[in-house]
Amino acid sequence: MGINLSNFFTSKENNLKMNNYQDLEHIDGVSISTVSANLYESERDDLVMFYFRKGANHASVYTQSKIVSENIKWNLNKKNKRVKSLMINTRNANAFTGKKGYHGLQKIAEELSLRLSEKQKEDEDKPEKVKPEQVLFGCTGTIGEEFPTEKIKNKIPELISKIKYTQNKYIWMKAALGIMTTDLKPKLAMEECKIGNTKVKIYGIAKGSGMIQPNMATTLGYIFTDADLSNEILKKLLKKNITTTFNAISCDGDTSTNDMVSFFSTGVAKNLNINNINDKRIKDFDLSLHKVLLNLAKRVVSDGEGASKFVSINIKKCKSETDAKKIAFSIANSPLVKTAISGEDPNWGRIVMAVGKAGINLNLSKLIILFGDFKIVERGQLSERYNEAEVAEYMKNEEIEINIEIGTGSKNFTAYTMDFTKKYIEINSDYRS
Amino acid sequence: MGINLSNFFTSKENNLKMNNYQDLEHIDGVSISTVSANLYESERDDLVMFYFRKGANHASVYTQSKIVSENIKWNLNKKNKRVKSLMINTRNANAFTGKKGYHGLQKIAEELSLRLSEKQKEDEDKPEKVKPEQVLFGCTGTIGEEFPTEKIKNKIPELISKIKYTQNKYIWMKAALGIMTTDLKPKLAMEECKIGNTKVKIYGIAKGSGMIQPNMATTLGYIFTDADLSNEILKKLLKKNITTTFNAISCDGDTSTNDMVSFFSTGVAKNLNINNINDKRIKDFDLSLHKVLLNLAKRVVSDGEGASKFVSINIKKCKSETDAKKIAFSIANSPLVKTAISGEDPNWGRIVMAVGKAGINLNLSKLIILFGDFKIVERGQLSERYNEAEVAEYMKNEEIEINIEIGTGSKNFTAYTMDFTKKYIEINSDYRS
Repeated sequence: MGINLSNFFTSKENNLKMNNYQDLEHIDGVSISTVSANLYESERDDLVMFYFRKGANHASVYTQSKIVSENIKWNLNKKNKRVKSLMINTRNANAFTGKKGYHGLQKIAEELSLRLSEKQKEDEDKPEKVKPEQVLFGCTGTIGEEFPTEKIKNKIPELISKIKYTQNKYIWMKAALGIMTTDLKPKLAMEECKIGNTKVKIYGIAKGSGMIQPNMATTLGYIFTDADLSNEILKKLLKKNITTTFNAISCDGDTSTNDMVSFFSTGVAKNLNINNINDKRIKDFDLSLHKVLLNLAKRVVSDGEGASKFVSINIKKCKSETDAKKIAFSIANSPLVKTAISGEDPNWGRIVMAVGKAGINLNLSKLIILFGDFKIVERGQLSERYNEAEVAEYMKNEEIEINIEIGTGSKNFTAYTMDFTKKYIEINSDYRS
Repeated sequence: MGINLSNFFTSKENNLKMNNYQDLEHIDGVSISTVSANLYESERDDLVMFYFRKGANHASVYTQSKIVSENIKWNLNKKNKRVKSLMINTRNANAFTGKKGYHGLQKIAEELSLRLSEKQKEDEDKPEKVKPEQVLFGCTGTIGEEFPTEKIKNKIPELISKIKYTQNKYIWMKAALGIMTTDLKPKLAMEECKIGNTKVKIYGIAKGSGMIQPNMATTLGYIFTDADLSNEILKKLLKKNITTTFNAISCDGDTSTNDMVSFFSTGVAKNLNINNINDKRIKDFDLSLHKVLLNLAKRVVSDGEGASKFVSINIKKCKSETDAKKIAFSIANSPLVKTAISGEDPNWGRIVMAVGKAGINLNLSKLIILFGDFKIVERGQLSERYNEAEVAEYMKNEEIEINIEIGTGSKNFTAYTMDFTKKYIEINSDYRS
C-alpha cells in the first residue's frame, strides 16, 4: 500500500509551513511495522507496532483528565521495568468502553507477547519470553464505540511478519502517518548528540491537531533513543522537558482522555552510566531531547484545526514560572485573542484583558507588551511610539510573537498556540458522519 | 431623537428569541436622562444618567480582573453610604487611560454634583448638597483611548434639564438602549413583590454580548428598587444572587476590565426594617431579585455574538457547589462543545472530555449525562437506550439542556452559555474600524 504524501503537504486547509521534514533513519533496537486493520471505511494504515528486540527502558506522561481511556489505565497498571512493544491504533480511542475495552487490550497483549516470544526464539541468540505486561498501548479516535479487539488481534501475524531490524526514513514516515487521525501532516523530528563520547540518536513522532471530530482527538508523542538510560532518568528528563514543550501548547484549551507521551531507550549505544540529570555529560542529550519535543509540539500546534497563524506567547520577568504559565495560557486560550489574530488585528486591548483575567497580581507601571519588536503598552498606558499601521503590517506574518514583561520577578514561560478561524468552527461543528 | 426599535428586534445576526419585553414603568426615587454626547461617529444616545432625588443606598460587585478601568477604581475609592447619581457612558471604557482618565471622572463628578446641588435647591423641600463622591460611574467601550471628559462634561446641563420625577417604559427602554455597545438587543427585566406587607418593585437593565470589538466589551447590570434596605443587606443579597446569575454565564470565558453590577435602593417604599437576609419577610424579595438578575443574565447570553443556541448546563449531585461550578464552566467554555452544539451534533464525547478536564474526582460508575431528557451516558458507558437519531433531533432546538449527575454529593450548579458559530469568528476577527 503506497503513500501519496502530496495529499498531506499541499492541503489548502492549512497554510502554515512546517513542510520541512528531517530524515529519520535507523535507530538501534527499534523495529516498526504498520498495517491496515480496516478500522476505517477506506483502507489506510491504522495500526503501528514498535518492537524492541532487546527490550527498552521507558517512561511516560499521561493526560491530566479525570476520565482516562482503557489503554492509559492498562499502561498505568503495568509496571514492568522493560517493555518489548508499543502498539498504537487509530479510529477507536478505547475510552468509555468499560471493562470490555480493557479486556480487549489484555487479549491483544497476550496474543502479541506469545507471537513475539516465538519471534525471539527464531531470531535471538538469547531469546527472552515476552510477557503481556511488556506491551504498552496508544489509542486515539472515537470514544464510546466498542473496541475492535478481534480486528486488531487478527493483524498481529502480519505485523510480526513485517518486522525488519534495520529501519529507514520510509518506515518512520509510515509510522507517523499511521498514527494520524484528522492531522493534515505527519509529525517527525530527530536530533543526534553525545552522552560523554558516545554518539546517540533521539527520534520522535507525534500526532494531534486540536480536539477534533469524530468525537475527540488526542496528542500522542513517542520518543526513541538508542542511549542507555534508566527508567528513572528517562522519567526525570521527560518530565523536565515536557513542561516547556508538549505542556506549553494549546490549540483550544481542551484536553483528551487519551493524551500520552512516552520515551523509550533501547540502550544499544552503550554510553557511560548516568545517575543524575544534572550530570553535565547528559547536558547535550537533555538539550537535544528538548529540541525534538519542541519541534514535535510546534508541529502539533501548526497543524491545529483551521490554523492560519502560529503564535508564540513569551511571558517574561514574572514572580514564578507558574504565574508566567497562567498568564501565557490565559492569552493562548482566549477566543477573543485568537480571533483577533486570525483577523490580523493588533487588538492589544484583548491581550490586556487576558493578562488581567489570569488573576496574577500586577504592577501596571511595569507591564510592557510588544507584538514582535513593536512596543504597544508601557507604564500602564499605550506607548507613545505605538503606530497602529506599522503593527497591523506585522500582524500579516504567519508567525506572530506576543512578548510581555510582567516586571515583578525573573521567571519566564512561553506558550504556543494558533489562531481561531472560521475553518476551525467549520471543522468542529460539522456533524460527525 | 427617536428610537427605531425594529433595528434591534429583527436582526438576522441573532436568531435567539428573548424578544419579549416587560414594561418597566415608574419606580419611586429614580430619574433617568439620556443624551448623545457624540461619542460615536453617528448620533445615538451614549450617555445615561440615573439621578436619585432623595439619594439611594447601594452595593456593587466588580470584575475580578487584575486590570480594572478607571471608573471601577473611582467607584471602589468612594465609600459614600448614599449615592445621588450613576452616570454611564459607552464608546470609551476609560481603561488603560492612566491618571488622566481618573481625573476626567473627578472633573465630571465635580460638575455633576454642583449642578445636582442646584437642582436640589430648586426642587426639594429639604435640599441636600450633592458631593462628587456621591456619583458612581459605569464605562464601556474601547480601551486605551483618551477619555472624552469634556464631551461628557458639556452634556451635564442637558442631562439635568431632562430629569423628570415620573418615569415610563419609554425612558427605561432608552436607558437600556443607551448603554449598549455591540449588543443587538436592549436588556430589561422587572419583578414586583412584597417585603412584609409593603409592595415593592425591582427593575433592572443590562448590557453585554460577549467580549467584543472595538477592543472589548463589558457586562454591566444596574438594578433598582424602591425598597428600603441598608447597604449591608443590599450587598449580601447581591452577592448571594449574583453567583447563580451573572456569575453563571459565559459567552467565551473572557472577562473585561469594566464588568460591574450595582444595586440601588431608594427606600421610598418604607417597608419594615430588615437586618438579616435570612429573615423570612425578605424571602419573596430575594427570589424576585434572583429572577430579575437571571432574566438579565440570560438575555446577555442569548445576545452572545453570533449565538444560534442558548445552552443550560445543569450539574447535579456534586460534592460541593465549587466542584459543580468548575465542571459546568469546563463544559460552557469548551470551544469543542460549543462548536458541536452549533453543528447540532449530539457529540457526547466532547461533554465527557470537558467533564474529565475539569479536574474534579469522579466515580464513573455514577456519572449520568443527558441531553434534555435523553440519557446518553450511565455507569461509565454509552447508555443502552441511546438512540442517536432521536438525540440529533433534539439538538435542533434553539434551547439545549445538558444535564449531568456526578453522583458524589448533593450540590448543584447551572451555567448558561451559547454556541460558537462562524458568525462569532467573523464578528471577532474583523479588523476594528
